[in-house]
Amino acid sequence: MLLLGTAAGAAAQPARIEPKPKGTFVLDEFARIHHWTAARQSADWQQRERGVAVGIGDDAAAVDLAAAADGVAEPKRLLLSVDTMVETVHFKPATMRDEDVGFKALAASVSDIAAMGGVPLHALVSVSVPPAYGPERMRRLYDGLYACAERYGVAVAGGDTTSSPAQLVVAVTVTGTVEAGRELRRSGAKPGDAVFVTGAVGLSAAGLHALLALEAAGGGTDMTEDDACEAIAKASGLPPGKAKPLVREHRRPAPSVRAGRLLLERGTCRSLNDVSDGLASEAWEIAEASGLKLTLEERLLPRSGSLAAYAASAGIDPLEWMLYGGEDYCLIGTVAAEDAEALREAFHAEGLPFFLIGTAEEGTPGVELLRHDGKRAALAKRGYNHFDK
Amino acid sequence: MLLLGTAAGAAAQPARIEPKPKGTFVLDEFARIHHWTAARQSADWQQRERGVAVGIGDDAAAVDLAAAADGVAEPKRLLLSVDTMVETVHFKPATMRDEDVGFKALAASVSDIAAMGGVPLHALVSVSVPPAYGPERMRRLYDGLYACAERYGVAVAGGDTTSSPAQLVVAVTVTGTVEAGRELRRSGAKPGDAVFVTGAVGLSAAGLHALLALEAAGGGTDMTEDDACEAIAKASGLPPGKAKPLVREHRRPAPSVRAGRLLLERGTCRSLNDVSDGLASEAWEIAEASGLKLTLEERLLPRSGSLAAYAASAGIDPLEWMLYGGEDYCLIGTVAAEDAEALREAFHAEGLPFFLIGTAEEGTPGVELLRHDGKRAALAKRGYNHFDK
Repeated sequence: MLLLGTAAGAAAQPARIEPKPKGTFVLDEFARIHHWTAARQSADWQQRERGVAVGIGDDAAAVDLAAAADGVAEPKRLLLSVDTMVETVHFKPATMRDEDVGFKALAASVSDIAAMGGVPLHALVSVSVPPAYGPERMRRLYDGLYACAERYGVAVAGGDTTSSPAQLVVAVTVTGTVEAGRELRRSGAKPGDAVFVTGAVGLSAAGLHALLALEAAGGGTDMTEDDACEAIAKASGLPPGKAKPLVREHRRPAPSVRAGRLLLERGTCRSLNDVSDGLASEAWEIAEASGLKLTLEERLLPRSGSLAAYAASAGIDPLEWMLYGGEDYCLIGTVAAEDAEALREAFHAEGLPFFLIGTAEEGTPGVELLRHDGKRAALAKRGYNHFDK
Repeated sequence: MLLLGTAAGAAAQPARIEPKPKGTFVLDEFARIHHWTAARQSADWQQRERGVAVGIGDDAAAVDLAAAADGVAEPKRLLLSVDTMVETVHFKPATMRDEDVGFKALAASVSDIAAMGGVPLHALVSVSVPPAYGPERMRRLYDGLYACAERYGVAVAGGDTTSSPAQLVVAVTVTGTVEAGRELRRSGAKPGDAVFVTGAVGLSAAGLHALLALEAAGGGTDMTEDDACEAIAKASGLPPGKAKPLVREHRRPAPSVRAGRLLLERGTCRSLNDVSDGLASEAWEIAEASGLKLTLEERLLPRSGSLAAYAASAGIDPLEWMLYGGEDYCLIGTVAAEDAEALREAFHAEGLPFFLIGTAEEGTPGVELLRHDGKRAALAKRGYNHFDK
């Protein structure tokens, strides 16, 4: 592409045909991308397991879908999703290491595939790199991205690398596949459904709070997980083991791919969302898409001991993080009341968490919380909002 | 997602459950995206013509590939590509209007599908929006993006909108489909092949030069095409009609989808690339991928009258733009010498430009230019380079 201020575009550029310097090796963009991505995934694995006939290095990747997605019954549909992380908006050196940024950028998109009940297959990675990021930092970013790709069996099939004036921006597109017509959507909830969540919520937000508090107290950046947990423990008076789940959930979240597949395979799940934007916000999306009112019960919400301990040390009501924190990457959904117990048993049989937390009923679309004291509170339809904050 | 500095993440955040303000309408992110994307493409068209079973508004889009891509014979492969445009790196208000940014961001990805011989199908749009871009500017960006989508039959099936601290970043992923095994790759050139290009090159770079010169002379920003062409004409002494192709190519490039399909259908094209990074750079990619030396002949390179006129007025050798400009979005490739003339005739029969510009032969991979005076010049393997500029 043409760049502003480069030779081709600048005004008053002298006419010349620049000969290739002999004997010098120009580590250009393609060489660097190759350096970051080569030997990460074999072409053989990409082709055999994920159907990648043409991978990184041509104008576009070419994929045989029929050769991909073990375990998904025909006929399939292709799933497509993109998620973007922007430096200073979603992360900064005090909260995430470069490896974590790469890991989480892919994890966020994989979570969208999980929330449809699908199997993730391929990723395309757009990275806009500011001058502060040299090759070593980029290698670390790709280290984390490929660690996530390996964990979820995702073939990194292409991408685009550009420069950025100041902030790192990472946009990851993920493909997946799902049995046609069985996608788990937001809009399928019915009156009488039980509302469930497949994991504890609020940990990522508490982890972010703890990492920002470290920074505010003059703490360092680029801290390893262990170092960060020790510093948080020291500052909060907690044992380091209590900090670990919070930092881990914030930096290296685990998309619920197996939970999503189990929900689809069981056939009783009626609506589904991931909790990327917070429990309240995602419940609102199901309520609005399905035209129902959802009631969540405070006493039923799963409470992490680590979250409770850290919240107590920080003097904060953990409920704030549980409802509005986001980036938990577990799943919220609904199931017919009569199928709820069997679904819970199916989850527990696989060692997966599953919590029934409320009900759906006819009414003006919205979400209410039934408090411990029996009072009802309308929950705001907020989570993150990039424009009205 | 969690945002740094928002309620959920900020240190010392008071505990509260915020009730939804009654009677107030919060134009939140989803409402805005809906506003920008609603009524642009009907769900019916997306489903019937492009197989979109689940479109914008759920965790991921779900697509039936079998229902998409009229005119592509079975068995198909899925094509995937992403391109990114960054404000101040690829555009600024003096060079592109918001509509143009949206149009070109999609066009760049569509061009990658064209360069594989495929048919573009779906787009996912990641936009990171700085504070300076209000809803009206975003609407204009989407106006341009959907204008491009309409021209190339692309279903906009999803996206992600985030905030950005300072620069607009647009990353567009495009899917396409192609007959399996018939993808037109960079690596298929053979010794003796003729090298062709499917359009004039250098116009976009000249257009950028003219727009930057206007800015340097104190010209305005956000100029319409007509106003920009008139201002360029005034400054350069050319008729406005000579400026139009340059500005048009820079702001609203036309990906060569039909040319790519024609090349695939004819079956004689052996290697192919789009000219997004400049003729020299793209020829180098074919040379390296195919392990051959390419020679381009200066006398055979297509020369646009508009380019020649503007270059003369600017005192610049147009060859610089033709070789290193980029963003021309025509195609460069190779064909067996004995099939070259028939291919040219097939292009001309459809009213499409086609120029034979050189040859491929055995030798150290690289690209040479045979000058008018019979001398040979090694062409630098440069175009844009985001790191070593």
